[in-house]
Amino acid sequence: MDAGGVDKNGVRRSQGGNPLSGPFYVEGALSGDTLVIHFNRIRVNRDTARSGSGIVPSALEPWYARNKQPVRDFDTTWHLDKEHGIATLAKPTDKLKNFTVPLQPMLGCVGVAPPGSQSFLSGDLGPYGGNLDYNQMREGATLYLPVFQPGALLFVGDGHAAQGDGELTGDALETSMEVEFTVDLIQGKSVGPRAENDEYIMALGVANSMPEAVQRATTQLATWLEDDFKLNPSEVAMVLGFAIRYDVAELVDPHVHVVAKIKKSSLAGLGPPTK
Amino acid sequence: MDAGGVDKNGVRRSQGGNPLSGPFYVEGALSGDTLVIHFNRIRVNRDTARSGSGIVPSALEPWYARNKQPVRDFDTTWHLDKEHGIATLAKPTDKLKNFTVPLQPMLGCVGVAPPGSQSFLSGDLGPYGGNLDYNQMREGATLYLPVFQPGALLFVGDGHAAQGDGELTGDALETSMEVEFTVDLIQGKSVGPRAENDEYIMALGVANSMPEAVQRATTQLATWLEDDFKLNPSEVAMVLGFAIRYDVAELVDPHVHVVAKIKKSSLAGLGPPTK
Amino acid sequence: MDAGGVDKNGVRRSQGGNPLSGPFYVEGALSGDTLVIHFNRIRVNRDTARSGSGIVPSALEPWYARNKQPVRDFDTTWHLDKEHGIATLAKPTDKLKNFTVPLQPMLGCVGVAPPGSQSFLSGDLGPYGGNLDYNQMREGATLYLPVFQPGALLFVGDGHAAQGDGELTGDALETSMEVEFTVDLIQGKSVGPRAENDEYIMALGVANSMPEAVQRATTQLATWLEDDFKLNPSEVAMVLGFAIRYDVAELVDPHVHVVAKIKKSSLAGLGPPTK
Amino acid sequence: MDAGGVDKNGVRRSQGGNPLSGPFYVEGALSGDTLVIHFNRIRVNRDTARSGSGIVPSALEPWYARNKQPVRDFDTTWHLDKEHGIATLAKPTDKLKNFTVPLQPMLGCVGVAPPGSQSFLSGDLGPYGGNLDYNQMREGATLYLPVFQPGALLFVGDGHAAQGDGELTGDALETSMEVEFTVDLIQGKSVGPRAENDEYIMALGVANSMPEAVQRATTQLATWLEDDFKLNPSEVAMVLGFAIRYDVAELVDPHVHVVAKIKKSSLAGLGPPTK
Repeated sequence: MDAGGVDKNGVRRSQGGNPLSGPFYVEGALSGDTLVIHFNRIRVNRDTARSGSGIVPSALEPWYARNKQPVRDFDTTWHLDKEHGIATLAKPTDKLKNFTVPLQPMLGCVGVAPPGSQSFLSGDLGPYGGNLDYNQMREGATLYLPVFQPGALLFVGDGHAAQGDGELTGDALETSMEVEFTVDLIQGKSVGPRAENDEYIMALGVANSMPEAVQRATTQLATWLEDDFKLNPSEVAMVLGFAIRYDVAELVDPHVHVVAKIKKSSLAGLGPPTK
Repeated sequence: MDAGGVDKNGVRRSQGGNPLSGPFYVEGALSGDTLVIHFNRIRVNRDTARSGSGIVPSALEPWYARNKQPVRDFDTTWHLDKEHGIATLAKPTDKLKNFTVPLQPMLGCVGVAPPGSQSFLSGDLGPYGGNLDYNQMREGATLYLPVFQPGALLFVGDGHAAQGDGELTGDALETSMEVEFTVDLIQGKSVGPRAENDEYIMALGVANSMPEAVQRATTQLATWLEDDFKLNPSEVAMVLGFAIRYDVAELVDPHVHVVAKIKKSSLAGLGPPTK
Repeated sequence: MDAGGVDKNGVRRSQGGNPLSGPFYVEGALSGDTLVIHFNRIRVNRDTARSGSGIVPSALEPWYARNKQPVRDFDTTWHLDKEHGIATLAKPTDKLKNFTVPLQPMLGCVGVAPPGSQSFLSGDLGPYGGNLDYNQMREGATLYLPVFQPGALLFVGDGHAAQGDGELTGDALETSMEVEFTVDLIQGKSVGPRAENDEYIMALGVANSMPEAVQRATTQLATWLEDDFKLNPSEVAMVLGFAIRYDVAELVDPHVHVVAKIKKSSLAGLGPPTK
Repeated sequence: MDAGGVDKNGVRRSQGGNPLSGPFYVEGALSGDTLVIHFNRIRVNRDTARSGSGIVPSALEPWYARNKQPVRDFDTTWHLDKEHGIATLAKPTDKLKNFTVPLQPMLGCVGVAPPGSQSFLSGDLGPYGGNLDYNQMREGATLYLPVFQPGALLFVGDGHAAQGDGELTGDALETSMEVEFTVDLIQGKSVGPRAENDEYIMALGVANSMPEAVQRATTQLATWLEDDFKLNPSEVAMVLGFAIRYDVAELVDPHVHVVAKIKKSSLAGLGPPTK
C-alpha cells in the first residue's frame, strides 16, 4: 500500500495518512533489546505514483514562498518504468516532457511500538523510528531500532519510488512496494536508531529542529565510535572531524531528521569493533 | 599560507586568523557583474597540517558536550603523504596509529569585497563568499560570486587538506596550498554564490541558522532553475522534490553554510539553459 | 499532588513525572467545541516545595554550560510562607539566606484528551494544552482549549509555587496546590489554546522550536483579531506591530511554548468583538 | 532624524537606512573599558511618524504569511499627540479610527565602534550595540557597552515613538527624537551589552537565532550575578530559575535580540554587589 492506502492494483485498501503494514511480533524481543531489520528487497510493484505539487513553504525563504505558489491543478501523477529504472510525469508539461527521475525505491516508515503507553500518528517519528523518510532506507540497508515493548511490534509502510533530501514536497513519489526483510535481535543491549549499508554506518538524528537533529546525529555517531572502538573524545574528533558526512533526511514531518554518517573505509584503520 | 599564517616552508608569514592572499583586481569587473572563478589546481604544498582537538560543543547534544571534553595536550599535528594521497596523525595515539584520512585539498576562503563600505573579519562569510568552508571547493570546481566593488577584489586562502561536513573541530586539516585559478566575468548580471563541478550544480546558502541556510540554498536553487529553464513553481518542485541533495558545509563560523545541489544528469532532460 | 506525586500532607500518592488529576468528563462537550476553564482559586496548600539545582544546559551558551556544572548535593528544598507570600530555601547557603521568591502559584499542566487515538506523556504539550508551564496560568486566568473527544476529558496538575520564564531549572517550585475551577463550553467553534486575564488576551504558541513557537503565537493572535474584529492584514499589523508582547513560557519540555499577548486596553478602540 | 533621514521639521537631512548621530568621542575611553550611557531625556519632537504596513513573513507561520499579504497602498502615516501621549493613524481605516497606541519613545540605535577594523551597516547589531531595537531603551534607562576603540565613538539614532516586541513590521513608529544623555566610564573592565532601569537589570543577548539569543542573554545574566554577588552555579540557578523574565526585543534585523532581566527587588536579599 502507498501512503494514501492504495495497493499495487490501484485498489484502496485503507484510509490515507501513511497506513502501515504490521505490527509484526518478533519472538523473544524484549524492552532493552535492539531489533535489526535487513531489507533484502524493496521494489516498486505498480507503475504509478503520486506526489505533491509544490515545495512546502517552510523550506523556502518567506518572500519566495509568498510569491511562488504551486500551480493550480498541476497533474502530479507519475509513470514508473521499472524496466528502465526511471519515473516520468504521466501527463508532463511541455518543459518536463523529457524529465526523468531515477527509481530509488525506499521505505518512508519503519518503526517499533514506542515506549510506555504512548501512541503517535504514523506521520510522526522518534527514537522508535516511524516516519523516518530517509532516502537511504533502500534494498540492502540494515536498520537498528531499540525495542520498547514485548515483541517489538515492527511496522513498515510509506513506499517511495524516489525522494530528494528533505522530502520537500511534503511527500515523495508515493507508491506501493514489494518488501522482503529479515530480522535479528541483539539481546540485552539497546542501540539506535542506527543504520548501515555497504558503504556507510549511519546515526539517525530525530529531533525538534535542524540544529538539534544535527546535535543528536553527531552525538549518536560519536557514541557509536566510543562504544565500538573505545576512543576518547579527541580521538572521536579526529575521526569525525575530517570524514563525517550529513544527510538531511526530511524537514517536513512533525520532527526533523538528519543523518550523520561515515564511510566504513574510514573506520578500517581502527581495527575490529568491540562487541 | 595556512589559516595560521605559515607558508609551505613552515615560515610564519602573517598573523593567524585566516590570512588571505589578495585582493586581486579583476579588470573590467563592476558592481552588478558576476565573477567566475575556475579552480584549475588546488594541491597541498607541504607535508604537515594542524587541526583542533575536539568537536565544538554547539554541534553536540548539551549533556554530551558537558561530559566529554577534549583530551588535554592531544597532539593534532598531521603528516600529509601526497604520494599516497592520505593524511595521518604525526604522533598518533595507539588507537589511531592506522587511521588515515584521504587528502581532498580545498580552499576554505574565496570571496570578493562586500557591498557598501562594510568590512568583515576573514572568518566571516556572506553573499560575497568569504570563509565558505565547503569541502567541494576543490580542484575542478567553479565558483560564481556577485561583484560589489570595481575590480571585484578577489581573495583566497584557508587551505584544508581535508574537511568533514560541518567543519566540526572548528577548523580542518589546516595547511598551505598551491593554487591556480582563472577568472571570467558575466557582465550585467549578478548571480551567486553558486558553484558547479562535473557532477553537480550547487546553490550556496549562507545564513544565520541552519533552517535559514536551508531556505536560502533551496530558494537559490529554485531561482536558478526558473531563470535558466523558465520553469513554473510546480515544475521546479518536480525537479527539486525528488532529486535535490543537501550538503552541510559548515556549522561553526559566524554564519551557517548549507548547499543545495542537483546532478547535472537530472537536468539533462530540461534542454539547454537560456542564457 | 505535586509533579513528584506527593500530596499536601507529604504523602506519596502517585508515581512522579507530572501525575495529573482527572480526567474530568465535561457534559455535552464534543469535538469541535471549545472548553473554557476559569481558574477561580489556585493556592499552595503545604509549606514545602522542591526544584532542580541547575539551569538546563540547552538554555546556556555551550562553553558556559560546559564549565559551570550544578553544585553536587545542593539542597533545593524550599519553605513556602503563605502568610508573607514568599518562598525561601529551607537550608540556604550563606549567600542566599536572605533571598526570597514571591509566591505566584500557577498550574503547569492543564489539558484535554488529544485528537485521534494519540497518547502522550504528561510532560508533553500541544494543541490540546498539557504541560504548558506558563507562569500566567494563575488564579483569575481563563484558558480556552479545543475539544477533541466527547467529554473533553480535562486534566490538571503540576502545581508551581513560582516559576521564572523558560522554566530554566527544568522545573519550578514544585508543590501541591488547592485548585478551584469552573468550566464553560463554546459549542460548534474550536479555538485555542488561548487565555485571558484582567489585563491581557494571550495566544499560546506551542511548537518544536522558538522561532516556530513565535510564529505560531503571532499567527494565532493575528487570527484572533481577524475573527473578532474583522481586521485586514494591515490593520492587524497596526495593532500588533506596536503593542504586542511576548512571554517565553518554557524552553525545557518536549515542545517550546511562547505566548503572544496584547493588552485589553489596546483593543478598547476597536469596539466590541464579533461573536 | 528618523530612520529615513527626516528631521523634526520634516526636512530630509540624510539618506535613509538608519542614519546615526555621532560619533561622539568620549575623552579617556579605551579598549577594555565600559561606556555607561544614561538616557536623561528621550522625547518625540514632531507630530508625525511612519511605519511598515505588514508583519514580516518570518514572524508568521508560512501558510498564513502566504495567504495574508499586506493591503496595497495602506497609509501608515501616524499622528503623534504629545499632549495625550498617544499615537493614532493620520488617515485611519474605519476599523482603526479609535485605535490608539501609547507613546513610549525609545532609541532603536545606540552603539560604539566595533572591534578591529570591522565596519557594519547601521541596521546591524552586535556586542558593540547598534540597532538593538529594544523598547525599554527609554528615558531613564542606562546602557552599558564595551569599548573597543579609543574614544568609544558613540552613536545614536533610529527614534521610535512606540514599538511592540519583536519589531514585527520590520520597523516601528519611526520618527525624530530629542535626546539628552550623559556618559560615564568604567575603566579597566569590559562588560555589556547590559542595561538597567528603576525596576530591572537587563542582559542583552544579540545572536544569530532566537535559541542562541536566549542562551546568550541567560549566560550574560548568570555571569553578572556571579561577578557581582559571587554566586556559584546552583545559587545562580535559584535566583534565575524562579525570577527571570525574557523580552523578545527584535526578530527582524540581521541578528536576533532577546533580553534576560530580573527585578532589582529580587536581588535585594543578596546584599550589595561587589565592585
